[in-house]
Amino acid sequence: MINIGVIGYGYWGPNLVRNFAETPGLSVAAVSDLDSSKLELVRKRHACCTTTDYRDLLNDTSIDAIAIATPVNTHYELALAALQAGKHVWLEKPMTETSVQARRLVEEAEKRNRVLIVDHTFIYTGAVRKMGEIIRKGELGKIYYYDSVRVNLGLFQRDVSVISDLAVHDFSILDYLLNEHPVAVTASGMNHFPGTPENLAYVTLFYDSGTIAHANVSWLAPVKVRQILIGGSNKMITYDDLEPSEKIKVYDKGVSFTDDPNQIREMRIGYRTGDMWAPKLAVSEALRVESEHFVDCINNNRAPMTDGRLGVRVVELIEAANRSMRCRGDTVNIQKRG
Amino acid sequence: MINIGVIGYGYWGPNLVRNFAETPGLSVAAVSDLDSSKLELVRKRHACCTTTDYRDLLNDTSIDAIAIATPVNTHYELALAALQAGKHVWLEKPMTETSVQARRLVEEAEKRNRVLIVDHTFIYTGAVRKMGEIIRKGELGKIYYYDSVRVNLGLFQRDVSVISDLAVHDFSILDYLLNEHPVAVTASGMNHFPGTPENLAYVTLFYDSGTIAHANVSWLAPVKVRQILIGGSNKMITYDDLEPSEKIKVYDKGVSFTDDPNQIREMRIGYRTGDMWAPKLAVSEALRVESEHFVDCINNNRAPMTDGRLGVRVVELIEAANRSMRCRGDTVNIQKRG
Amino acid sequence: MINIGVIGYGYWGPNLVRNFAETPGLSVAAVSDLDSSKLELVRKRHACCTTTDYRDLLNDTSIDAIAIATPVNTHYELALAALQAGKHVWLEKPMTETSVQARRLVEEAEKRNRVLIVDHTFIYTGAVRKMGEIIRKGELGKIYYYDSVRVNLGLFQRDVSVISDLAVHDFSILDYLLNEHPVAVTASGMNHFPGTPENLAYVTLFYDSGTIAHANVSWLAPVKVRQILIGGSNKMITYDDLEPSEKIKVYDKGVSFTDDPNQIREMRIGYRTGDMWAPKLAVSEALRVESEHFVDCINNNRAPMTDGRLGVRVVELIEAANRSMRCRGDTVNIQKRG
Amino acid sequence: MINIGVIGYGYWGPNLVRNFAETPGLSVAAVSDLDSSKLELVRKRHACCTTTDYRDLLNDTSIDAIAIATPVNTHYELALAALQAGKHVWLEKPMTETSVQARRLVEEAEKRNRVLIVDHTFIYTGAVRKMGEIIRKGELGKIYYYDSVRVNLGLFQRDVSVISDLAVHDFSILDYLLNEHPVAVTASGMNHFPGTPENLAYVTLFYDSGTIAHANVSWLAPVKVRQILIGGSNKMITYDDLEPSEKIKVYDKGVSFTDDPNQIREMRIGYRTGDMWAPKLAVSEALRVESEHFVDCINNNRAPMTDGRLGVRVVELIEAANRSMRCRGDTVNIQKRG
Repeated sequence: MINIGVIGYGYWGPNLVRNFAETPGLSVAAVSDLDSSKLELVRKRHACCTTTDYRDLLNDTSIDAIAIATPVNTHYELALAALQAGKHVWLEKPMTETSVQARRLVEEAEKRNRVLIVDHTFIYTGAVRKMGEIIRKGELGKIYYYDSVRVNLGLFQRDVSVISDLAVHDFSILDYLLNEHPVAVTASGMNHFPGTPENLAYVTLFYDSGTIAHANVSWLAPVKVRQILIGGSNKMITYDDLEPSEKIKVYDKGVSFTDDPNQIREMRIGYRTGDMWAPKLAVSEALRVESEHFVDCINNNRAPMTDGRLGVRVVELIEAANRSMRCRGDTVNIQKRG
Repeated sequence: MINIGVIGYGYWGPNLVRNFAETPGLSVAAVSDLDSSKLELVRKRHACCTTTDYRDLLNDTSIDAIAIATPVNTHYELALAALQAGKHVWLEKPMTETSVQARRLVEEAEKRNRVLIVDHTFIYTGAVRKMGEIIRKGELGKIYYYDSVRVNLGLFQRDVSVISDLAVHDFSILDYLLNEHPVAVTASGMNHFPGTPENLAYVTLFYDSGTIAHANVSWLAPVKVRQILIGGSNKMITYDDLEPSEKIKVYDKGVSFTDDPNQIREMRIGYRTGDMWAPKLAVSEALRVESEHFVDCINNNRAPMTDGRLGVRVVELIEAANRSMRCRGDTVNIQKRG
Repeated sequence: MINIGVIGYGYWGPNLVRNFAETPGLSVAAVSDLDSSKLELVRKRHACCTTTDYRDLLNDTSIDAIAIATPVNTHYELALAALQAGKHVWLEKPMTETSVQARRLVEEAEKRNRVLIVDHTFIYTGAVRKMGEIIRKGELGKIYYYDSVRVNLGLFQRDVSVISDLAVHDFSILDYLLNEHPVAVTASGMNHFPGTPENLAYVTLFYDSGTIAHANVSWLAPVKVRQILIGGSNKMITYDDLEPSEKIKVYDKGVSFTDDPNQIREMRIGYRTGDMWAPKLAVSEALRVESEHFVDCINNNRAPMTDGRLGVRVVELIEAANRSMRCRGDTVNIQKRG
Repeated sequence: MINIGVIGYGYWGPNLVRNFAETPGLSVAAVSDLDSSKLELVRKRHACCTTTDYRDLLNDTSIDAIAIATPVNTHYELALAALQAGKHVWLEKPMTETSVQARRLVEEAEKRNRVLIVDHTFIYTGAVRKMGEIIRKGELGKIYYYDSVRVNLGLFQRDVSVISDLAVHDFSILDYLLNEHPVAVTASGMNHFPGTPENLAYVTLFYDSGTIAHANVSWLAPVKVRQILIGGSNKMITYDDLEPSEKIKVYDKGVSFTDDPNQIREMRIGYRTGDMWAPKLAVSEALRVESEHFVDCINNNRAPMTDGRLGVRVVELIEAANRSMRCRGDTVNIQKRG
């Protein structure tokens, strides 16, 4: 049995505690939060210890793992302390404020041989795993584009832009789906309220293979949209996360292009349209899948699917996108990693 | 009765002829097309003259107006000749390949006191007119953003990018809705098939007032989407052109921002959510409204809502967006017009 | 070349004339209507003769076939006269007011060896033909139910109930899809406006095999719905006629039932849920397919898919449903035909 | 503080316990279930007593109220025993198997002055309350019809037909919305699996005022639908319970009927179509609203909105509908209650 302590019982913490509590092999030992009224809620709902001082959790030698669900600007300090206390770490996304910090955490986790999982929950959904399966089987052919719209009203974040809050999902999904890292980023955005971070942004990622990815993210839309299109040379996918039953649709549609020299000055493009297919998806809650995976990684000393290295790559893209956005869309190149 | 001759009976020409034929005060005198099989279709459907030589139409002194529905690269030459022959001109969009050409046509039309209408059809739809009415009444408050997704599979254009084909609609709608011209443009795009124009593009327009506009346009999407979100400080609009009955929805939703100095380090943002309202829209076909407007402008010597000057502004934006796209998103400033 | 004359240029006549005019092997010789302003429209749009006296069409020996698109209460007299004049007949649905009349027309057509097609257009749509193909291949297994909702605002009919106007489509589709005729009918309905026919009705059909069919039809709904569910023991279909691209969806979903005697007092039912599949549909306009079929039947002396016998069966169901409806839902048995 | 004991921790019980636990003024004292593995779940989630013998709850004098979430065929016995033990009772729907039983419970509750609430949860949703508000203000005008589709795959019930499981919602909603009780019922249905109750049914209710109501309910549909249309002489409502944000839409649409004697033989019907309006709905969870209402009724000795009398009327309609269904749709009259 792995004993886990949870730091932060705000927006996401309650979901973590509820899932951890029902995950076999995992037991919630204690929860800390600065706000004691939240701890009262914990005690009403669950049978576990509470404290307003997270250091009690780090000092408790019966605790094996620490989950951190606090504001981003505290992630680095808390995660580093937890690793240094010899704990495995579950860290909310985005991993840290800077990629330097993120790389430092990876280094610490590896040095101490601790599991460090970054909670990019989407990677554990049935929908994203099914898309990964389809793409890895080569069904889409060459990937032409990835196009995401992720907008709704609120929740405005105090410290980080909408890119850190919403485009972060696309960065992790792209990392999972594509066998390639972008080489350049351009982003435009706007903060409509002085003194706040950007509440709306358009991010474009360029890949050497010719794939282009785009994320339209906003906290200021009257309707909620969570829609991704992925176009390949053979097939195309739509993923609507708000659709209750058929989130993923695979279209046997595309364009066929001929290089026939006799057709100079003619359009050499034809359309294929065929059936559409909506595969059945696994229905398990993503967070449950992820917490079982975390247990498995600890017990078998394996790297999580969303390990610190993936977390670093995502933070690097956030940094690059924010930099481009603050220069009205100037292209920012992404460094090749060795 | 105004006699009109139509040059070009390809994709759009049949719609023009059918509408002109049923517009009071307008009579289709003749149709020209290079392809005589298309002229056979004309004769089967309508009682009017046909010719493979458009000059027959220009030389026919009984013809008062010329509609031009040919590829963009012929617009300038044909429209100029028609104006010089003393005809009123109905010109498909985009008006011309270059803004220099477009301005030259405006000049010629003004010199000869002829009506020059550019067929930005969307401006004549019940939906766009209703949005204009709502915005001009100030119901939205300050306009924060305009966000358009306009994607589908095909039709690939031979000579022009998807910006000229699809974003052109957003440029004309923005020109109609906003009392302001953008100051800068940035665009990213991709041509996935060597030797063809860009088939997918993301265009962002910046305005001095802080409004930001974005158009996501593609010929390579598995599903057709025609959706615009407009966010204001008081209300927000969604416009789904594929929705049969309630294309326009007005949301009494928004964000209220306080500058309360006591709330430093606090988010000073609250949400308002209220009713939604879908106004009844005029159901007349846009092209019919536009052809009646054309007749009215000729008869009363008035400038059309979508006159050559609007056409010029749209072509300028296409030029700027294409230029930015070919430099991977570098910002292109728009010249102030005096 | 078959010359056709069209009687009636009201709501549906223009669609017939337009389609006939573009059907190879068919030529619209003349159109009659009592209203001469409608004939003016015909002359504006098409190059054919017009008359206010339908007898001119019957007397014209150059005319081979007559299409009848007039109110139902005139169908019998007009169709009989046309057949007696030796013409092939295209008759709008429902075929006649009474099944006695309908059978008389079938008899007359057979005696004179003329083609009699009843315009149950839905049978010629890509969607219904695809459903027929799927069902005949046995993919659904045993058919449990057919459930149709067919409602909208208007158009109120003067003389016939909403059953004749809307449920008529379900009666013909059921006749086409199922290899079985219902044995009993029950219907409820309401006329909310004194002196008018029923504007809303619920019709249930019972089959010996255990299949049950239901049609919910109304002229008084705020939204338009055209949705059919078909449930089988292996798979299930949804058919949404207003969906632009994926009208037909086939669900690999169902219920498996075990007769295991050990499970007495237990529910012996399990669910299967699998993929969904939306087959590509033929996109040709149904009316065009049907008019080409009409030409083929005349030229090759074959019975149409929607021949008079199908028309009779549909009228019998309308009669039975109307009878039940006027007795508040009493069951009406359908006579077995030899 | 009211102490409540819950009998039954199967499908619905966990929702009750979770809600009761967070309702101010209510405390979950104990839970009983025949299945001790379920009680283990209770203890994991909540700090309360558990027992496999419900009589422990009735005998516990510190318990003020009993909630019963067991199969329908146990409702009468359990509720009667609870009332006789002096407890207030929260009873799942449908109230009992027979209306005789239901009336007996009302009598017992009134004799002992105990609160008896029947858990017709829909009545406490923001959507149904908003519809009630709109209808009571007279905005719809005369109510012409109520039309409900309530279908999905499963869950098959062992003992009761789909009418008791799904149409029961429409019966309670109709009772809440309309100021009138139906005078007759007709129903058709089918059990496609021998030895099981009907899994699909069509129920029609007739009212003296001319209102007609219809419910299409099924456990055998490939898709989930929860849609109600309500048509009035002035306005019409659609209620889609699966729509996340705009469940209720009010259409300014209708039909106007003239009795103008000069229009004999003419249709005297015109259409009105105007704006659509989607009112903002209260977002509180219905079950929470209902449990707070239960507390209020106990503390202030008031009758619940969904009291035993409403429960009786609903059971009477289920009985009548089942009777009609088993006679293939014969009309069953509803007795006037004094």
